[in-house]
Amino acid sequence: MKKLNIGMIGCGFMGRTHSNAFSQVNHFFDVPYQPVLKTICGIDAPLAKDFAANWGYESYETDWRKVVENPDIDLIDIVSPNNTHAEIAIAAARAGKMVTCEKPLSRNAAETAGMVEAVETAGVRNMAWYIYRRVPAVMLAKQLIDEGRLGRIFHYRAKFLQDWTISAALPQGGDGLWRLDAAVAGSGVTGDLLAHCIDTAMWLNGGITEVSAATETFVKSRKHNLTGKVEPVTIDDASLFLARFGNGSLGTFEATRYARGHKALYTLEINGENASIIWDLHDLHRLQFFDHKDEGRLRGWKSIHITDSDHPYMKHWWVPGLQIGYEHTFIHQAADFLSGTATGCYAVPTFREGQRTDYVTDAVLESARNRSWVKVGESQESK
Amino acid sequence: MKKLNIGMIGCGFMGRTHSNAFSQVNHFFDVPYQPVLKTICGIDAPLAKDFAANWGYESYETDWRKVVENPDIDLIDIVSPNNTHAEIAIAAARAGKMVTCEKPLSRNAAETAGMVEAVETAGVRNMAWYIYRRVPAVMLAKQLIDEGRLGRIFHYRAKFLQDWTISAALPQGGDGLWRLDAAVAGSGVTGDLLAHCIDTAMWLNGGITEVSAATETFVKSRKHNLTGKVEPVTIDDASLFLARFGNGSLGTFEATRYARGHKALYTLEINGENASIIWDLHDLHRLQFFDHKDEGRLRGWKSIHITDSDHPYMKHWWVPGLQIGYEHTFIHQAADFLSGTATGCYAVPTFREGQRTDYVTDAVLESARNRSWVKVGESQESK
Amino acid sequence: MKKLNIGMIGCGFMGRTHSNAFSQVNHFFDVPYQPVLKTICGIDAPLAKDFAANWGYESYETDWRKVVENPDIDLIDIVSPNNTHAEIAIAAARAGKMVTCEKPLSRNAAETAGMVEAVETAGVRNMAWYIYRRVPAVMLAKQLIDEGRLGRIFHYRAKFLQDWTISAALPQGGDGLWRLDAAVAGSGVTGDLLAHCIDTAMWLNGGITEVSAATETFVKSRKHNLTGKVEPVTIDDASLFLARFGNGSLGTFEATRYARGHKALYTLEINGENASIIWDLHDLHRLQFFDHKDEGRLRGWKSIHITDSDHPYMKHWWVPGLQIGYEHTFIHQAADFLSGTATGCYAVPTFREGQRTDYVTDAVLESARNRSWVKVGESQESK
Amino acid sequence: MKKLNIGMIGCGFMGRTHSNAFSQVNHFFDVPYQPVLKTICGIDAPLAKDFAANWGYESYETDWRKVVENPDIDLIDIVSPNNTHAEIAIAAARAGKMVTCEKPLSRNAAETAGMVEAVETAGVRNMAWYIYRRVPAVMLAKQLIDEGRLGRIFHYRAKFLQDWTISAALPQGGDGLWRLDAAVAGSGVTGDLLAHCIDTAMWLNGGITEVSAATETFVKSRKHNLTGKVEPVTIDDASLFLARFGNGSLGTFEATRYARGHKALYTLEINGENASIIWDLHDLHRLQFFDHKDEGRLRGWKSIHITDSDHPYMKHWWVPGLQIGYEHTFIHQAADFLSGTATGCYAVPTFREGQRTDYVTDAVLESARNRSWVKVGESQESK
Repeated sequence: MKKLNIGMIGCGFMGRTHSNAFSQVNHFFDVPYQPVLKTICGIDAPLAKDFAANWGYESYETDWRKVVENPDIDLIDIVSPNNTHAEIAIAAARAGKMVTCEKPLSRNAAETAGMVEAVETAGVRNMAWYIYRRVPAVMLAKQLIDEGRLGRIFHYRAKFLQDWTISAALPQGGDGLWRLDAAVAGSGVTGDLLAHCIDTAMWLNGGITEVSAATETFVKSRKHNLTGKVEPVTIDDASLFLARFGNGSLGTFEATRYARGHKALYTLEINGENASIIWDLHDLHRLQFFDHKDEGRLRGWKSIHITDSDHPYMKHWWVPGLQIGYEHTFIHQAADFLSGTATGCYAVPTFREGQRTDYVTDAVLESARNRSWVKVGESQESK
Repeated sequence: MKKLNIGMIGCGFMGRTHSNAFSQVNHFFDVPYQPVLKTICGIDAPLAKDFAANWGYESYETDWRKVVENPDIDLIDIVSPNNTHAEIAIAAARAGKMVTCEKPLSRNAAETAGMVEAVETAGVRNMAWYIYRRVPAVMLAKQLIDEGRLGRIFHYRAKFLQDWTISAALPQGGDGLWRLDAAVAGSGVTGDLLAHCIDTAMWLNGGITEVSAATETFVKSRKHNLTGKVEPVTIDDASLFLARFGNGSLGTFEATRYARGHKALYTLEINGENASIIWDLHDLHRLQFFDHKDEGRLRGWKSIHITDSDHPYMKHWWVPGLQIGYEHTFIHQAADFLSGTATGCYAVPTFREGQRTDYVTDAVLESARNRSWVKVGESQESK
Repeated sequence: MKKLNIGMIGCGFMGRTHSNAFSQVNHFFDVPYQPVLKTICGIDAPLAKDFAANWGYESYETDWRKVVENPDIDLIDIVSPNNTHAEIAIAAARAGKMVTCEKPLSRNAAETAGMVEAVETAGVRNMAWYIYRRVPAVMLAKQLIDEGRLGRIFHYRAKFLQDWTISAALPQGGDGLWRLDAAVAGSGVTGDLLAHCIDTAMWLNGGITEVSAATETFVKSRKHNLTGKVEPVTIDDASLFLARFGNGSLGTFEATRYARGHKALYTLEINGENASIIWDLHDLHRLQFFDHKDEGRLRGWKSIHITDSDHPYMKHWWVPGLQIGYEHTFIHQAADFLSGTATGCYAVPTFREGQRTDYVTDAVLESARNRSWVKVGESQESK
Repeated sequence: MKKLNIGMIGCGFMGRTHSNAFSQVNHFFDVPYQPVLKTICGIDAPLAKDFAANWGYESYETDWRKVVENPDIDLIDIVSPNNTHAEIAIAAARAGKMVTCEKPLSRNAAETAGMVEAVETAGVRNMAWYIYRRVPAVMLAKQLIDEGRLGRIFHYRAKFLQDWTISAALPQGGDGLWRLDAAVAGSGVTGDLLAHCIDTAMWLNGGITEVSAATETFVKSRKHNLTGKVEPVTIDDASLFLARFGNGSLGTFEATRYARGHKALYTLEINGENASIIWDLHDLHRLQFFDHKDEGRLRGWKSIHITDSDHPYMKHWWVPGLQIGYEHTFIHQAADFLSGTATGCYAVPTFREGQRTDYVTDAVLESARNRSWVKVGESQESK
């Protein structure tokens, strides 16, 4: 089996999920490459060293440029804060590396444009880690939609609800708190949470053509954890929008970190002429399905426990009835990337496809600022 | 429309549910009789008088014999404590009245035998109010079983869980507490709760042939609410049994008043070769259905919201999506009784059919006493 | 007990729910009036006659003016199509009758203004039947909010999802189909379904200050069931809006008749700083409650089975564990109206309060037309 | 970090779950040993070779004796069919190895006795892989019980429902089908599924003193997959029993492979005076909890999403809201074993504790044969 040497840039929460994915993929999937955890890069040397030891990286670095320049590295995987994505990705592409990048690809579509151009010019493999496409239940939803089971689509609804920033005592700033800094993150929940909802939505239901949005910052100022000063909060705490899709259906989207009682409740629902689907990240191993073609008196919402060998990805895991969890979604994405790399197919979403989400998040933020409907940028042609 | 004059014996909780049923049935069902609330009978005169005023009874009595002897009365409906059922029912039958009786029919099968003989000798209409058969979801289950949707049956499970007697401070005795006095009730949860489970089970799954049971009285003595003295508790607080059905399937049954968190959780599940069914009184307007004939990757438990016009009884109520509740089950039973009376069919269960449950509860109590498997009495031939 | 003579205008679906409420209220609630079903009015004489016989009305009429003019009538209850409400209500008020009216009060706030003026000028009792306030679970939610259990509110979400008009073969027009005719109904789902969501929302969370909405008519033309001609559909099939409340919270609202799999799924969720609440009409006897003050590791969403005597309205019904249904909500509203009438309090919502919902639905329709945020009319001052 | 060289005997389904556990444990838990996958042993050489390559074992063997005799091996982990456990474990103990063994420990308590004696005589570490104790939700239940939150216990219920052997066309015999051969497995569902329920039950609720059981073999003969002949089925397809615990509570237990619609539905419920708990393997990341001490009108079953850092084991995984799955339970058990080994504590259950379950399964099978209540063997003293 061919080795694929990984240089990972970033060693936070996403560094763990990606490292785990590359460690586990060969145990469960028959893919033509064996990823090798070659180098981890983190700006804090002791942390990077510990991370390397924990996950079995052969070396660690504190300067990402050294990783990108290392001729032994085949793939640069970017899991650092959003404001660093573009520069790293562009350099990696120019160095001829495969490049994969945690979402959102960058802080906005314009910034992402440079990344798209770089990977396409260099002709290197590239992928955005919109991992919820690889939840088996969501993939089953995709299959059902592609088979035409739902018929004409009328409604799409998605929410991503969290509650971890409600306390006004929570600081903003650096380290694990860069998600509260718009200069670093690009936006608040719009890029962090809504981006997931939008990527899945367009994958399942085609392009979004226009949006009307509202955002809100409930806690207006917070202490900065590095400076110690109370400073204005620059991000959106909540972001909601109405959408029209290219296929004529209507969408409602909402993300917030102020929904008490929900930790990571990403839910989606799609209502078609013939059938409807509901999925929920808090019970990610289930798909709710309603089929109007069922016999009348026996119609109902079916809770499908996605653990059987005929469910997407599941024959690779345990036996029927035994569920998998969140981390497996990354392993699936790694497997698809490695398989695609062998066969000549690109695993989706590529950077170009990932940029489509940036066009929507840009439109959402503009609509909220301008209090008007905004048409989504040019790349939003309906699928 | 013909009038049917009702004499109701008892004005407690069941007096209310039955009075409501007779008041409401003509508003929703096209039946050939109009029940008239003629006389209510209660041993406490002021209570009976108030009850009559509240429900529109034309008169009240404190001596049930006067009601039975009244030539204007067509139907005697018995909702008094269990130890009074037999004597009233037999007298009513001999007086040529129709007789309906709240469950259990009496304190044991031998006592019930006199009631069966009396109504059959007199040739009068009779019915036991095992009302859970008339929950629309349960009736739908019955239809599916009768259509052979489930195939060979392997397992039947039923539980009736309550928690209202956990406090040792609760007294036993008279008035509303006669259910804690074995001399009046016949038994504890066996006759009160398990009887419901058994009636439904045999209706859905045929006769029970033998049982192995255990009972327990967790609080051994309680103050008597009339005498004020602490006296031994004579009833079973919990009653559990394993069963074998005539069709070869296995059953597990359990009833208790010590299941903290459950108020009236009557649940049943039946597993067949091809399909399975679950129902639950706490959400009585839903039926869970699993059909193995569904396409493999789309198999799952379907939650059928039983509110559509093609569901049993539901076309008589509101519009799809709008649920009914507990009391409606009595109205359905009244409707079936009145319709049957017109067409010559008897509404089930008759006293004879109701007695089959007494044979099982007798066997359960005997098994618990003797710590052995007990065959169910002679009338338990498989349906 | 004093008699209260009812003249009911309309004998459709709502005629049944209201007649049932007035029939049942005295059986379960100790109120100072006994409603008497005096006269039912319907435009189809045979139907009105049958309706009268079924529900025990003493007489029937085909001309509502005769009912309004009848000096024996104390209360005019309006359950006819929306375009008739104002004229009838105004005439009834001028005749000195109490007036209650099914929602929405009329086709728009301007039309409702005449009704408000009439009842206030005449000084007569008046009430709009926004019945979901009287679901025990919703009333418990109100209590918790009023007690400050939720703290500062961040989010309010409501949806009312149906699927009964998906088929393009469904005609529009008269009789039971007037809800598809904007000239009669005023609007489509905005007035029919969203109005419920809005009334509950403002009752629980205070006034809505501005909205951004989108509406859609998925099936553009339908055969008229009276003329037989295919005609443009004039109503909104779906209506969605973002809202800002006076208390600073954000709202998302959606109503549709094109959500396959949902019959009458009215759901609401409210997220506060300290606690959150979810309710769902398809299981109306449950309230979901999350309390952040619970011990950390034991936090979770609690499903409260609203059947205990310490739950709103429930001591009037059966025993713990036994659920009530849709129709009971009308009985509660009737009980509150009759009690209020005795004590001098008005049962809410009065016509004036009901008009607040019309201001919002007007703003929603205007926003959808103009593709802009619209401020809600002057009466929308925060509660 | 010290290396701990693993010799694993068996490379089927459980070989995978154990290999994964030892591969993953150091990535997530700070334990003092690093397990090294030294040698895998399987009777089919090509399969064993592939398994070794897939999981990174340094070598493979087809004769377990060679592994046991290898001085480099520190720990023998047994995941082969039940009839081989005792011989391997005894040899491993005599060779001075640590010994861990998949459940059930052997085919019956007498056979297990030799294993217990061997490990205790040799003074080697030993553990039975009753992994459901390490589900975070189940561990939380244990904490709550140990803290006295539930008060006096009245009822314990457990079921393990599967449906994979319903088809009469399924063969019995060798390879993956040894679970249908009593000579190899010891029993059918009693040892395979009920053993899990019993282990958890006694851990949570103390010893079981006596049982009354029924077993059934629904499909009486099946083709043998090796001989091709139709032969009698020797195992129990279903096994049910009533139990009395040493603490006075009553138990109902059931396991079957004929419960259509359930793949691996291990559920448990425990009802105490003050609180109750429900858990369910199909949604293993949730715990249902009812606390009677909650304010009356707000009592209800709480669904606790076990993903927070204050839940057992969960701080080692991802972030709140993100669930883990089945395989993690083995990783937790490996972590506890390795930690315990370092600190001098034994990770439970040891072989001696695991044998207690064998005494109960022996009693269940005897009770079913003899149709009588059977007292559990001597080691079943109440905790």
